[in-house]
Formats: sequence, C-alpha cells, structure tokens
Amino acid sequence: MPTPPGTQQTRQHPTLREGLHHNMRALVKERPAPGAVYREDFPEPVCGGADVVVRVEAVAICGTDVHLYEWDRSGQDFRPKLPLVMGHECSGVVVEVGPEVRGIREGQRVALETHFPCGNCFPCRTGDAHNCLNMGLLGLRNDGAFADYVKVPANVCFPLPDAVSFEEGALFEPAGVAVHAMQRADLKPGDSVLVCGCGPIGLIAVQLCLAAGAGQVIALDVNPYRLNIAESLGAVVFNPLQDDVKAGVLDLCRRRGGVDVALEVSGNPVVFETIFDYIRREGTLVAVGLPGRAVPVDISRDIAKRGITLTGVFGRRLWDTWEILASLVEAKRVDLGRIITHRLELADFERGFELVRGDAAKVVFRM
Amino acid sequence: MPTPPGTQQTRQHPTLREGLHHNMRALVKERPAPGAVYREDFPEPVCGGADVVVRVEAVAICGTDVHLYEWDRSGQDFRPKLPLVMGHECSGVVVEVGPEVRGIREGQRVALETHFPCGNCFPCRTGDAHNCLNMGLLGLRNDGAFADYVKVPANVCFPLPDAVSFEEGALFEPAGVAVHAMQRADLKPGDSVLVCGCGPIGLIAVQLCLAAGAGQVIALDVNPYRLNIAESLGAVVFNPLQDDVKAGVLDLCRRRGGVDVALEVSGNPVVFETIFDYIRREGTLVAVGLPGRAVPVDISRDIAKRGITLTGVFGRRLWDTWEILASLVEAKRVDLGRIITHRLELADFERGFELVRGDAAKVVFRM
Amino acid sequence: MPTPPGTQQTRQHPTLREGLHHNMRALVKERPAPGAVYREDFPEPVCGGADVVVRVEAVAICGTDVHLYEWDRSGQDFRPKLPLVMGHECSGVVVEVGPEVRGIREGQRVALETHFPCGNCFPCRTGDAHNCLNMGLLGLRNDGAFADYVKVPANVCFPLPDAVSFEEGALFEPAGVAVHAMQRADLKPGDSVLVCGCGPIGLIAVQLCLAAGAGQVIALDVNPYRLNIAESLGAVVFNPLQDDVKAGVLDLCRRRGGVDVALEVSGNPVVFETIFDYIRREGTLVAVGLPGRAVPVDISRDIAKRGITLTGVFGRRLWDTWEILASLVEAKRVDLGRIITHRLELADFERGFELVRGDAAKVVFRM
Amino acid sequence: MPTPPGTQQTRQHPTLREGLHHNMRALVKERPAPGAVYREDFPEPVCGGADVVVRVEAVAICGTDVHLYEWDRSGQDFRPKLPLVMGHECSGVVVEVGPEVRGIREGQRVALETHFPCGNCFPCRTGDAHNCLNMGLLGLRNDGAFADYVKVPANVCFPLPDAVSFEEGALFEPAGVAVHAMQRADLKPGDSVLVCGCGPIGLIAVQLCLAAGAGQVIALDVNPYRLNIAESLGAVVFNPLQDDVKAGVLDLCRRRGGVDVALEVSGNPVVFETIFDYIRREGTLVAVGLPGRAVPVDISRDIAKRGITLTGVFGRRLWDTWEILASLVEAKRVDLGRIITHRLELADFERGFELVRGDAAKVVFRM
Repeated sequence: MPTPPGTQQTRQHPTLREGLHHNMRALVKERPAPGAVYREDFPEPVCGGADVVVRVEAVAICGTDVHLYEWDRSGQDFRPKLPLVMGHECSGVVVEVGPEVRGIREGQRVALETHFPCGNCFPCRTGDAHNCLNMGLLGLRNDGAFADYVKVPANVCFPLPDAVSFEEGALFEPAGVAVHAMQRADLKPGDSVLVCGCGPIGLIAVQLCLAAGAGQVIALDVNPYRLNIAESLGAVVFNPLQDDVKAGVLDLCRRRGGVDVALEVSGNPVVFETIFDYIRREGTLVAVGLPGRAVPVDISRDIAKRGITLTGVFGRRLWDTWEILASLVEAKRVDLGRIITHRLELADFERGFELVRGDAAKVVFRM
Repeated sequence: MPTPPGTQQTRQHPTLREGLHHNMRALVKERPAPGAVYREDFPEPVCGGADVVVRVEAVAICGTDVHLYEWDRSGQDFRPKLPLVMGHECSGVVVEVGPEVRGIREGQRVALETHFPCGNCFPCRTGDAHNCLNMGLLGLRNDGAFADYVKVPANVCFPLPDAVSFEEGALFEPAGVAVHAMQRADLKPGDSVLVCGCGPIGLIAVQLCLAAGAGQVIALDVNPYRLNIAESLGAVVFNPLQDDVKAGVLDLCRRRGGVDVALEVSGNPVVFETIFDYIRREGTLVAVGLPGRAVPVDISRDIAKRGITLTGVFGRRLWDTWEILASLVEAKRVDLGRIITHRLELADFERGFELVRGDAAKVVFRM
Repeated sequence: MPTPPGTQQTRQHPTLREGLHHNMRALVKERPAPGAVYREDFPEPVCGGADVVVRVEAVAICGTDVHLYEWDRSGQDFRPKLPLVMGHECSGVVVEVGPEVRGIREGQRVALETHFPCGNCFPCRTGDAHNCLNMGLLGLRNDGAFADYVKVPANVCFPLPDAVSFEEGALFEPAGVAVHAMQRADLKPGDSVLVCGCGPIGLIAVQLCLAAGAGQVIALDVNPYRLNIAESLGAVVFNPLQDDVKAGVLDLCRRRGGVDVALEVSGNPVVFETIFDYIRREGTLVAVGLPGRAVPVDISRDIAKRGITLTGVFGRRLWDTWEILASLVEAKRVDLGRIITHRLELADFERGFELVRGDAAKVVFRM
Repeated sequence: MPTPPGTQQTRQHPTLREGLHHNMRALVKERPAPGAVYREDFPEPVCGGADVVVRVEAVAICGTDVHLYEWDRSGQDFRPKLPLVMGHECSGVVVEVGPEVRGIREGQRVALETHFPCGNCFPCRTGDAHNCLNMGLLGLRNDGAFADYVKVPANVCFPLPDAVSFEEGALFEPAGVAVHAMQRADLKPGDSVLVCGCGPIGLIAVQLCLAAGAGQVIALDVNPYRLNIAESLGAVVFNPLQDDVKAGVLDLCRRRGGVDVALEVSGNPVVFETIFDYIRREGTLVAVGLPGRAVPVDISRDIAKRGITLTGVFGRRLWDTWEILASLVEAKRVDLGRIITHRLELADFERGFELVRGDAAKVVFRM
C-alpha cells in the first residue's frame, strides 16, 4: 500500500520523536453536532510521567466512533469531552516514554487497551479491571487514535509479537471482546455455538470459537454480505428474514437439545424473544451487544427450570484475553485480516464512515 | 414425641414388610378440586425389580403440595396424575428391595430425591441429571410420601449418616435446592449474600451461606415472623415494606459496592425491578423462586456493562448437593431443625396446610 | 476390506441374534503364561437383566492387552480372571437387550466404556464414576471384545452418531483418556502444550489439543516413526535422543516462560527429572502414563514456589469426555482414523501383537 | 497495652511526618553472621515518586526472619542485601505519599504485601502477580518493617477496614498464604480438611477452613502446645508421635474415603511418605511448607490412578486473598488475635526470637 506524501515525513522517525510541540494529522470531533474535522495542524500530545506516546500505525472504525460521528442519541449519551480526537482501536510504535514508566521501552510495537483502569477500586484489585469504577476511555474522555500520535498511560500498552501485523494488532481491541465473551461462556471443545449478529465482533467470534474447538458455529444476520463472510469463516449461517432459524438450529443440535453457548452480538432487543429457545438446558447466553431497552426474560422457564445462565461482557479481561489473541494470531489459528474489508487514508474518513454503515466488516485507516 | 395408637401398629415392623397388599395411611388427592382425602385403607405399594419400598418416618409440606391441595392455577398446571398420594420431602427406612437393586439394602435409613432421572438423556449423561428430560416426580407423577410407605427407584435413595435424624433427612430435599443455588452462585468465603424471601429454602440458605463462609447474609421478607427466624439464624434483615433496602444493603457492602451474590427465593416478579441495584459489578443473581410472568431485564446496564450473571436452579445436583448437606448437618454446622416450626400427625393434615399459609416455616408430619 | 468367509455368516444378522448358545470367534487368554488362543468355538455370552449383548465391529489392541498377552510383570499384576476373552477398545451393534434395560435398544451403534462403575460408591455418586471403588473391567475381570459378541451392563454403552465409523468408535476409549487429560489440564485457547510420548493416546492428544485451540503442541518421543506421525498431525517435534529439548521448548515458549500444559503419556519415570523445567510458573502437568516406580518431585521449587500443579487421570469422565469426542469426530475436527496404521483379521492376532511393539500406532481388528 | 515512653514521642505525629532525615528505631541485620542489631539512630526512609512511607504499628516475626537472624543455611540462601532492616509482616499508617501515587492517601490504615510485583511480566499480566518474575521482597531485598517507618511502593498497600486492628492487619500476610492454599484446594462446604503442621499458617488455616464451611478440620503436629491451640480453634488433633494417624483420619472420613483436602504446612519431607494415604480419590494436596529436598511421589498410584492433585502456593494472590481476609476478620468469623501468643517491644527482640523457637504461635512487636 503506497504511503501518501504528507504522511511520509512523519513516518521517517521510526523509533523516536525528534521534538515536542509539532503538529500532526487528526480527526477531531469539535462540536456537539454530526460530523468531524480532519486537521493536519493538531498539536501532538505531550507525554506525562507515567505515560507513553505511541505513533499510530493502524486504527479501525468502531461502532462507538460511528455514534459519535453521526451524533445520534447513543453518541450524545456517551457525553464525550469536546474537542476530541476520535478513534481507539489501534496499534503502533512507542516513540516516547515518561520517566516513571517501567517495562515499556521506546521502539516497542504495541496495541492499546482503550479502557484505562484506575488500579485501586475493588474491581481493579480483584481481577476485574475491565470493569473499573473510574475508567478512562480512549477516544471518548481522552484524545484518541485517529491521529499520528496518541498519548496513553503506559500500563495500557500490550506488546505485540513480531509475527502479528499492525493491522491485526489494531483489531485486538474488538477481538478481545469476543475472547472475553467466549471465556465467559466457558466454551468447551465440541460445543455448538450460536453467534447472533455478524458485525466485526461476531465475525471474530465465529473464527475464535472454531479455533477454540467448537463442534460447530451457527451464525445469524439479516445482511447477506456479512452472512457470506461468516460462512466463508466456517459458520453454518441462517438469515432470520428468510430461514426457519429455530428448526434449523435444533436440527443441527439434535443430540444436545440446542446450542451449548449463544453469543448475542447484535444488540437487537427482539432477539431475546426467541434466543432462549435455541439454547439447551444448562447452556449459556452471553450478551455482548447493547439493546436500547430492557427485554423480558422468562425467569421461571428459562433461567430456573431450564438452568440457562445469562451473562454478559463489556471490554476485555486484562490481560489474559489479549495473550490468548496474541498466541492464536501468531500461530495463524485466527486470521483477523479476513474481517478487514477496506483500508483507507485518514483523510478519506467520510468514505470510511459511509462504508461501515453498509456492506463492510472492518474499515482500517493506515497511518 | 408420643406415637399415636393408630401408627404404632405399622411401626412394629422396623426393617421388613411382613407381606404385601396390606393397607396403609395416605393423604390422597382424588379429584381435580380443592382438598385431599385422608385414608387408612390405601393399598401399600408393590415393589418392582429396580425399586425399593421405604417406610416413611418424616415428611414435610412443600409449596408444591399446597398448590395441589388448594388446586389453584399452579396446582392445576402441574397436571398431576390422579388419584395421587401427595408429599415428597421425606425420609425413612428401606423395608423392601427389588431383585435388580445393587448398593441399597433393607434397613437402611434414607432420604429420597424426588426427581427421578432417566439416566440416558443428554443432561443425565453429562452431569446434569437434575435437569433430566424425562423426569419422574414423586408426589406428582408418582405416588408420594404422605403415607406409611412409598415406592421409588432404588437410585433415588440417599443413605443418611447415623447422626442425621429423620426430620433433618426429610428436609434434605428443600435444603438441597439451597445448596444448589449456593453452588451456582460460586459463593466464596467473605462474600456478602442477599437472600430475598425467607420461606424454608430462604431460611436454609441463610444458614448454609453463613456456614460456607459468607462474610454477611442480608435477608429480606415482608413477613415479620419469618424475618425474625432469619435474624435468629444470623442474617441482617430488612423488611421492604418498612425499610430503605437499597440504602441499607449498599451501606453494609460499601467496600465491594454491593452484594457479591443474591439468591431470589421469593418468586415475586416485582423483586427484579430493584434487585440488580443491590449487586456489585461482576456479581451473581441466582433465581430459585418462580415468578409467574416474564420480568424485564436491563441487559445493557446490568448484564453487559455491570457484568452481572443471572442464573437459576431447579432441584438438586446429584449427589454432591446431598453429600454437602450430609457433612454439614452431621457436623452440626447447619441445624435444619431450626426451621421446623410445627410437627403434626398426618391425620391432622388440614391444620398443617393452614399453618404453612401463615406464620410457620416448615411443617413436618411424623409418621 | 474383504470379509473372510468364516465371519460372513455371523454378520448376516445385523440387528438381532437369532438364538442363544451359538459359538463364536474369540481370542482367549487361557493360562497364566505368554500368548493367547484363537478359538472359533467359544460360547456366545448370555445376556442378563440389566445387560446388553453387542456384536463387535471393530476392536483395537491396547497396551494392557500387550501386557496380558506377553504375561510380563505388569500383565501378571493385573491379575485377570482366567480364562479370559481379551480386548476392550471396541464398537459394535447392540443385538440383545436385557429386560431391565431402559434407553438402549437393539440395532443401536455403540462404543463401550470399559470401566463398569458400580453407581453407588462415593466417587460414583459425586461425578467421579471413572474412579469407582468397585470397578468392573472389560477384558480383564469381565470377558472382553476380541470376539464376535461381548456382553456388558447397558449403562456402559455410548450411542455413536451416524457420522462416526465403527473404527473411530473403537478408539473413543483411548481417545477419551486424552480428552480427560486435556480437561484436567484446563487447557485454554492459545496455550502451549507439551506431549511426552507419541503412542496412540499421545497422538490423539496432539490432535485434540490443537482442535481445542492450543497455540502450539510440542511432542516428544524417541521413536522416529511415531514422531513423524505427530508432526504430520501438526505438532512441533523433538527427539530427546538427538535434540536439546529444553532449549527448543523454551525458545518456542519465550513469551510465557514455558509450556502452559504438559501431558506425560510415556510412563517413563526418567521424564520427571526434566519435565518441570519445561513448564511455566502456574502451569499444569498431567500424568497419563504410569511410571513403574515413585519419582522424586522438588516440592519447594516446582510445586510451591513455581506454583505448578501435578495431577493425573485414569480412564474417562462419564460421559462428558465421550460427548466431546462425539462432537469433534462427527464435525471432522479430529480424525481418529489417522492414528490407525494397521487393520487385521482377529485370526491374524499374532501379527497384530508383533506390530504394536514396533513401528505402528493403532492396530485394529475388523470383525 | 501501655505504650512505653520511648515510643510515645514518635507516635505523636499520627498522620504526617514532620520532616525528613530523622532517625528511628530499627532491628538491623548488619553482617553475614548470626544475630541482629537494635538501633535507635537508623535513618528514616526517603519516599520516592511512586512510594509511600508507612509508620509501623504492629509487626510479627516470620520464619524467614528467624532464618536470617540465626544465619542458618536457609537464611544464607535467601542472599539478603546487607545491611538490612528485617521484618515484613506488618501494618501501620501511611504518613507520606509520593507525587505519582494515586488511590492511597496520608492517614490511611494499611497492611503491606511483602512481595512487590513488577506489573509487566507474564505472570503479572495474567493474574499471577504473586508469582512475579522480578519480585521485590520486603525485609530481604528491601529494608523491612522491624522499624518505626518503612518505605514501600504504593501499590502494595492494602487499606484495612476500620474494624480490623493493627495486630490483625500485621497477620494478613501469613494469613493470606492460608487463604491462598484454601483457594488452591478449591475447598467446598462439607469437605474434610487435613492440616499438617500447626505453626501460625497452619493454625490460621484451621480457623479459615472451618469458617469457609469445612465439615471437619483434622490437624497434626508433634508439639503439644500448638496442637492444643489447634484443638481450641475447632480442629480434631493427632500427634504423629503418639497416635495412629492413618486409622484416626480414615475413621473420621469413612463416608468419603479420606480427606478431600490436605494442606502440608510443616515443610517436613517425611510427611510426603504417608500423606497421600489420608486423601480420598480425586482429592487435593496443597504444599505450603518448603521441604528441603525432593520427595518421592508415586505418580502411578496416587496421581494417575487415584486422581489426586498435588499443587502448591507461595505468597498471596493479589488482592482477592486479602479481601477475603478483610471480610472474614471484619465479620469476626476469623479471629487472628487467637494465634498471637506474645506481644513485645522491638528492643526486646532477643526474647522474641527465642520464643518463636519454642512454645509460641505468633510473636508481635507493637511499635
């Protein structure tokens, strides 16, 4: 992929920033209204004592970015600090290291955890830092990664194995959600898995669950483009608009009486009206998507009598989910590149945001 | 406790039935209408090849029995086979053993599992026999234990330690539900536990969770009589009709941000409107009670973002829940006798059913 | 594969035995001395009330069989009942069903669990029936499956999915040991696994661990023939006679500091002198092979300070290990056929026992 | 307890140090030889950017301290940096906070984790910080807590609940090892537990396991003084010098066939010759004590065939073990004060070290 002239200059300093207070490219949400502004004169971030500055190499568009960009109800509800450099699914090279930092060094190739844990609250102290009570959020409360450089606390850097590309590294953040969901489901070899919703996280879940020994993965979506990708990744696919999903799923799971594990990634509240019917007794349903309203659950029938567990995830367990990804991607057992459907320059952001609303899986900006 | 004259005769055969086809006492649901008939001429059960006959020594009234007796909506929904000997929470002595039976012998003191697993379905074959697809049900599909003798498959007999009384043994069935719920919650030492509903299972849960290392148990009920028992068993109690439960619970759980574990035993659907607020992030809610309608669950906030797990139980895991009880009761670490508030003769059944609707915990018939 | 004339006659009754007291082919250990006798006049087994008779379709030679056949020290230590029909890794068709049997029917294709659990002891009652205190043993205490027909308790039949062949089914017994070891290791996706010993169970473990998401599997053996198979199944292989195993393993596991999981399948006591060095802190070592003497373990360094867990397995958990296999084999995610290197007639047993001592993986008799 | 005059002066600054470079009391290992020097002119520690200084309130003598003091083989093997302020089981008040510290404030009552994790190695990143590859060690590599003030990284401070005394807080460090062992054993309610060795950690394990629902705890020691304390805490006790331990243990565990969990706390290698005989099939043995030599383990019989798991612990899981203690001690379910047999002034250190070699459990210096 050819690097455009404007970028090249910045790219010439591979391991170290030559000075501070330069300007850089950035996609900035400046006002509480739809859209964002592409600037080439945004001031580079200044590194603090426990921070690092990372030169961004690849950064992907997430659903959160779309909500912010479109300034819809969800986007407003995030209450971002403005002006804001957007973007958070990224990888890059550490180019500056604060004086208090231990264990991270200049030149290191890293992906970034976008939830900054405080380290002191009860969840942080007991292994649930992903659910920190005082969480910093890259690209939402803190300036993000749709930019040449991004500043983060050193303790959110994940060192990438050499064999993992920057593009793959940029997808560790969404992929880690899929790993987290799979962990939470306590997936066992031979299990049948249902994935509802074939957006990027759903598609990664298809790959991951198969790599982790699922006997079969059944994927649902109403978008034929995405279903097609799911099928190419090994899933048996159904389109609820056309197929008798219940009959199809139960036929595939005759021996066990339903899927062992269902991952709800669509966030569509209507899914909850039927999804319990596809799950076997003592099975597990993991909510990843965020339905916009409460949904009715038949506690007596599905939770108590059929013994189904309903649980959910947000973010990624630190750092076991990341290490699992590092191993699986390094070993070529999961190919995150297969869900990248478009690669663009940051200046081409308008096309990027258009693409993710239509027939695309993951759209990545190469910096 | 004095044995009434009528009983004594039957009791004279301590380890063996002298013949077949005698008559016995039994409380029988004869017709699809409220009430039941106490008979002294009901034919004794005939033992099959893989069955045992047990002389009942103690049998308790369960909520299911009340529904059948009153023939309310739930009672009718159970669709019992009629005529039916009611009753299923029982203990006794094995007095006859079928020719195919291995491992159970005449004279053994036993409590009975009331769910008869088929042993062949997928749940039965994979450690979930409590959720068998072809379950027999004592006192519902099979003649029950409000009688001098009851016939069951030999594989539902649980041998009682000598130090466990028949009365205690009769309560292993409901107590096992509480153990199951505690297991499902993965209770850890030091955890704060909320028990919603102080019926017999809730009261046993209070004792069990404290015995299993809960840092504190908080119990809720609207009935002062039951709350009083919960408090005497070591719980901190709140009455939702009088107390600010949320403030009270969160104050007691400041360090962790809410209870680690909540057990919903009341079956009241209204509870689900608030119970998630009492639970800390990454905590667990176990449904034991059966709300009569679906309840709204805020998947986004409570399940995905706050990471709470909603699960449930029905029946008892075989046989680890029972062995846990055997150890704890034998070691006097749990005293099931403390929730027995009334002991009656079977002939006095009308008073028994009246009691359980009011200020009582467990009502036991001594046979 | 051509069916020999003598066999054909028996094979003509596909679902039902026409009568009792016929003779059949069987490989019989008659005396406490090396060798065995192939007979065509051995009486067919007589079915009891809770038994089934299975027409054997495929049966494999196990290491236990070799010890019995050669009548070495281990073989004598097994103290088999004599005369004994040998053989126990088998599959076939149910041709007769005892009157007390529920859930198994004539004509069903099954594999057999060779450990008969009593169902009543503490391990049996608490989910550890594979470790029954009163275990029956097919082909050791009970007449085995190197024969046209074998009689077993109905509750050791595992119904095979249609897509699983008889040959594959015959290997579920050894394969289930590998599944059990993998479960016990709590293998997680991305883990590095070391398999010491590439006999049949080791080779199946290579496939299984990769199918279950291992990042890499490293296999050790001194036999180049077996190492070659392990490599073809996806393992990185080392020969301790030639390679610097420690350097090789640690280089492959730099990021984690050693393998997460080691499976010791060789039974060679010398392995324990070095194997802990290959395992990372907090990793797990599962003993599957049976070293003939106690081995020294550095509790302080390896168990306490480095936090390594040493555990082991014998037999197969019932029935989750089998269901996992059924799913993985049916889905073609594990190909048990790849470890079958030789297929013979039962009459050719002498060649079979010779083969398994040399360059072979699994030798199967087709009946 | 009356505060001696010499101490009082230092104690007058309850929340803040008035200046730097004062002198303080300290027990110092100055030379590689037996003994230590009590000084009143030792310079107070200087706080770094990510550090805190804690005014020590209570500090206990640990076995490690004894080895250092006596300068025996183990003590020399620790290779301490000299001169060294000894001591590490302590609690106190934060009196100075470095500028980079978040989440800890002056005046906070804390106990100290004595293993300083680096936060960056693989164990640290994946939930095993207690097994850090680059561990700092209080009172061994870093100046310790037999002093008025101690400096530590802020992230090893554990805030104590108000209801927990300083003395109790000083014992969280050894008590956390017992919690860790209990976690590792996956103790379940009703389990029978064997505790080998009734030193302070063993005695705390007795209390903890009973508080966590053990059906019974059996404790072994050859010292009648310690056995007596174990018995007073609720254990059934045996003295291997006098009692038939095997018969006694198996008689108490008839139903299960042995203890479910054994904790080896003595570090005596001879124990491993018999301890497996006391454990039931599928039970767990956790090594806490450090035998000075490798011990023979019968892998075939005990690990593979009997399915026993041998695992071990060192240090405390961060911070769940501490939070469990905080809850149990705050709720008065565990009384750490019951194992404190002697309270001394630091100047009286010689008597302290003498006591711990004889009839004492825990000896605490009140500062």
